[in-house]
Amino acid sequence: MMRPHHDGSELYVSDPAPALGDTVSVFVRVPRGTGVSRVHMRWVRDGEPVFTSAVVDRRGPGGDTWWRADLPVHNPVTTYRFLLGTTRGMRWLTGMGLTTHDVPDATDFRVVAHPPPPPWARDAVVYQIFPDRFAKSAERELPDWAVGAAWDDPVVRGPNALRTLYGGDLDGIAQHLDHITGLGANTLYLTPFFPARSNHRYDATTFDHVDPLLGGDRALERLSAAARERGVRLLGDLTTNHTGDAHEWFPQEKELYYVRPDGGYESWRGEPTLPKLNWGSDELRRRFARIVRHWLAEPYALDGWRIDVANMTARFGTDDFTHEVAALLRQAMHDVHPDGLLIAEHTHDASSDLDRDGWHGTMNYSGFTRPVWSWLRADDLPFDSFLGVPEEVPVADAASVAATMSAFAAQMSWRSWTTSWQLLGSHDTARIRTVVGSAERQEVAAGLLFTLPGTPMLFAGDELGLTGADNEQARVPMRWDAPVLGFYRDLIALRRSSPALRLGGLRWVHADGDSLMFLRESAEQSLLILARRSPGQPFKLPGLPPGTTSENLYGGARPLYTEPDGSTVIDGYGPTVQVWSVRS
Amino acid sequence: MMRPHHDGSELYVSDPAPALGDTVSVFVRVPRGTGVSRVHMRWVRDGEPVFTSAVVDRRGPGGDTWWRADLPVHNPVTTYRFLLGTTRGMRWLTGMGLTTHDVPDATDFRVVAHPPPPPWARDAVVYQIFPDRFAKSAERELPDWAVGAAWDDPVVRGPNALRTLYGGDLDGIAQHLDHITGLGANTLYLTPFFPARSNHRYDATTFDHVDPLLGGDRALERLSAAARERGVRLLGDLTTNHTGDAHEWFPQEKELYYVRPDGGYESWRGEPTLPKLNWGSDELRRRFARIVRHWLAEPYALDGWRIDVANMTARFGTDDFTHEVAALLRQAMHDVHPDGLLIAEHTHDASSDLDRDGWHGTMNYSGFTRPVWSWLRADDLPFDSFLGVPEEVPVADAASVAATMSAFAAQMSWRSWTTSWQLLGSHDTARIRTVVGSAERQEVAAGLLFTLPGTPMLFAGDELGLTGADNEQARVPMRWDAPVLGFYRDLIALRRSSPALRLGGLRWVHADGDSLMFLRESAEQSLLILARRSPGQPFKLPGLPPGTTSENLYGGARPLYTEPDGSTVIDGYGPTVQVWSVRS
Repeated sequence: MMRPHHDGSELYVSDPAPALGDTVSVFVRVPRGTGVSRVHMRWVRDGEPVFTSAVVDRRGPGGDTWWRADLPVHNPVTTYRFLLGTTRGMRWLTGMGLTTHDVPDATDFRVVAHPPPPPWARDAVVYQIFPDRFAKSAERELPDWAVGAAWDDPVVRGPNALRTLYGGDLDGIAQHLDHITGLGANTLYLTPFFPARSNHRYDATTFDHVDPLLGGDRALERLSAAARERGVRLLGDLTTNHTGDAHEWFPQEKELYYVRPDGGYESWRGEPTLPKLNWGSDELRRRFARIVRHWLAEPYALDGWRIDVANMTARFGTDDFTHEVAALLRQAMHDVHPDGLLIAEHTHDASSDLDRDGWHGTMNYSGFTRPVWSWLRADDLPFDSFLGVPEEVPVADAASVAATMSAFAAQMSWRSWTTSWQLLGSHDTARIRTVVGSAERQEVAAGLLFTLPGTPMLFAGDELGLTGADNEQARVPMRWDAPVLGFYRDLIALRRSSPALRLGGLRWVHADGDSLMFLRESAEQSLLILARRSPGQPFKLPGLPPGTTSENLYGGARPLYTEPDGSTVIDGYGPTVQVWSVRS
Repeated sequence: MMRPHHDGSELYVSDPAPALGDTVSVFVRVPRGTGVSRVHMRWVRDGEPVFTSAVVDRRGPGGDTWWRADLPVHNPVTTYRFLLGTTRGMRWLTGMGLTTHDVPDATDFRVVAHPPPPPWARDAVVYQIFPDRFAKSAERELPDWAVGAAWDDPVVRGPNALRTLYGGDLDGIAQHLDHITGLGANTLYLTPFFPARSNHRYDATTFDHVDPLLGGDRALERLSAAARERGVRLLGDLTTNHTGDAHEWFPQEKELYYVRPDGGYESWRGEPTLPKLNWGSDELRRRFARIVRHWLAEPYALDGWRIDVANMTARFGTDDFTHEVAALLRQAMHDVHPDGLLIAEHTHDASSDLDRDGWHGTMNYSGFTRPVWSWLRADDLPFDSFLGVPEEVPVADAASVAATMSAFAAQMSWRSWTTSWQLLGSHDTARIRTVVGSAERQEVAAGLLFTLPGTPMLFAGDELGLTGADNEQARVPMRWDAPVLGFYRDLIALRRSSPALRLGGLRWVHADGDSLMFLRESAEQSLLILARRSPGQPFKLPGLPPGTTSENLYGGARPLYTEPDGSTVIDGYGPTVQVWSVRS
């Protein structure tokens, strides 16, 4: 049986982007047989809990009762939860689901009155490119710091790893835009294009120009125009925590860094080539506001930024200016590109930095990548850490995946969650193919990537099944002779054509060791998704209303058959991803 | 079997009040048989997780292994958790205990480098007095707003409830200090003593004088001197969210309030007699700093404040100055009384307002009062709400009590938790005797009050078994002819004489429907506490090391008997509170 449910999607919240002073209707869906006879909304006004009675709005198909309460948007972030009076006592309904005992406010639902993320973000499929490794349009002279490599050379590990230049460039990307649009991606995210002394370019020497090794400013102009022509959005990567030690500001402009009187200085995790910026400096703030605007304005016209090391930016000891800096960067972006997108790199729990007037979302390693890796990992892995955690990737069952995803999602608004990037890997991790060990399981991983809430981001080459056991090996150059894995194209097409996948809510319906099933439901469409990592036994899924009809949209399974007792038979094939459109 | 454990008490953290730049040793206690072979500490430095390996520090009695890691105190609040490598995979250890899947940072342990609460707070037993209802030293003329009542008159409900004056005063309190010290309490908290137009006086007309109905400034001077003479600390009650509408500032000093151009104004929960203060005003800040200092200085020499409606103070719409105001009040207090205590009223989840440089703690209704009420409530209650929640007090079992307490405690530092006031009721609630329905169950409630972490606070009259089904009825005048319930005296004496109850950590050892057992352990002493709400079946408690000896310190049960298999027999008597000193 399904449980009472609420989330931040359109079925449950009347306005995803209200202004202060508005009233938003919020709904609780109560399935038959749950014994709920009273519903109150508890919301927090100026720091004080207030209770408002909900009323029955309507009865839905399948016997669900929809309760409605009206929520005044009085504070920039208004938190709320529901109190359900049941035959077995009171229950709280928060982002963690139903609880029988009191829980703290951290998982309350929230409505945010700050300006919303740009509308295009909810439809984005992001394709990440590490420019040195994507495509090369010309031979160029190597700088002094670099060691050249031919395109087919294996990736170098060790001390020279960061100095090896394959020579990919921006015109190379422009020449392969058809690959990206053919895949169905519509948003391009480039890791840094500023001049630096490494192939990753997170050690910028200036923020004023595009690296001549990538083709310089004019190449970005050409790439931007070509992308725009194809309807592809373009995002840059801005390092706000540090610069390279060869940056034009360093070391002479001491007030921009944490320089000590003895000449020593703070740096990113103690790495001396990456001196840490001091956001206590008003001058630094002015400069970055200008940088943000410069690249978002014509002729480069970027559509936004991914902010590198956003979690550490403007934090040092007693300094914590992160929220101010995020707001400053957002405002600067808004000045020239009101529809820009600002995504923060964050490797653990970003919730305290979200739902403000800064970052629109984060890279959701914690709430997506880690649980998916844990569920789908190969039996033997050629590496022994877990995205920075010094233990092997743990082995988790599907119930644990759902619990982990819910735990992180519950700490932020629906819009921060869905705007955040979910990813199976990046230039900073092992390749998903290596993690899961087979194309079959990679399809399951991609199935989750493109059907769960959140903005899917894939790292260029994942669609070719490229492998790599760590971040260096993952940065293998694109293999332009390799065929594209068809399921990427198909899943992206499904994602882009399905309102339920882009806008729908999420209800978990089944989770055991090997199988995870959930509903994505929007006003227009209801999809039932099955992800299974291994073959298993058929089982009966309770909860779909009698008379439900279904159509298979992905995976090729038969339509679902609902038994007279209302249960639905799920076959035991696997690994698989199946998507059905269901109608009650 | 016990599980791996850490908390913020002296057994597990080398320094409860470190300064920035210090290094603190933190310990994990790993019982035998838990399969833990590796321990890492994950801490967050400038927003980024860092892993540090723990080492085996020592093996303790009973076979526990104590792992140690060194935590640099780099940020004002440094959060940390542990990663345990076990034979069955990795486990996180956070304030919520062990988890097999990733959890957000909200329940990480934390070390706080802000100045600590005053040392005397950890030894405090707080006695709350509502001055109009405690003791009367003289007859006085009634003010125009008041309706007089004789001391033995029943409490009035309805429109006149707040206008009924029994005439208790400060000299009356001073005359009964022996009652308070005889009980064992050592800290007196007075609800407001400022002039007002109600018997509760939360609608102050000035903050510059003591209400003449209470004896005026000189009476406070006398009470303060008398208290000091007996070693009793004295705390006031300051309303920072609002004043009365008859306050000398209102309505002419518009900038101090939220006055609209049409003359309308914001007020506490829409109550027009309580206009809301606007902390955007620098002048208001100056005035309150002066008020705080005035009453903490000689000759009144208060030892601190309970801040009324602290959760709403300085919050309105887009305004949120609460943390600034808390810091301002703390600083003002510190200016004249470096050892002062600042406790915030808060009725739900205060965690986001704690562990800063403002409030030392809160009134912990959420993490103590509510779970205790739920566990010990009488079958029939003469009221139908739950401390502001519009449902009857839920019926919970002991496991749920432990889970609720842990959930709230896990969101704050150990010191914020233990400095917070735990209470069974106050002038704002029904009386605990009415909630639990019998003296036997009140003893169980008091047992939890005086043996769990947190600063115990009792509302004057609870020790006489006074009853009251709501906040008005709870404000019944003291019955000076009624005998004191001996268990209050005994439990307070036990609390004050037991280092483990004042300084010790907390390990839950058993929780079922009717029984709750836990260990309080300090460097000097280990106590095992049993609280049981009803008679039950005897059971065997696993986990005490073989050879453990015990001595009963409270409740009169036999010494514990440990079976050859290491289990300990717990008899089924109840309701009861038993406290044993145990030694392994």
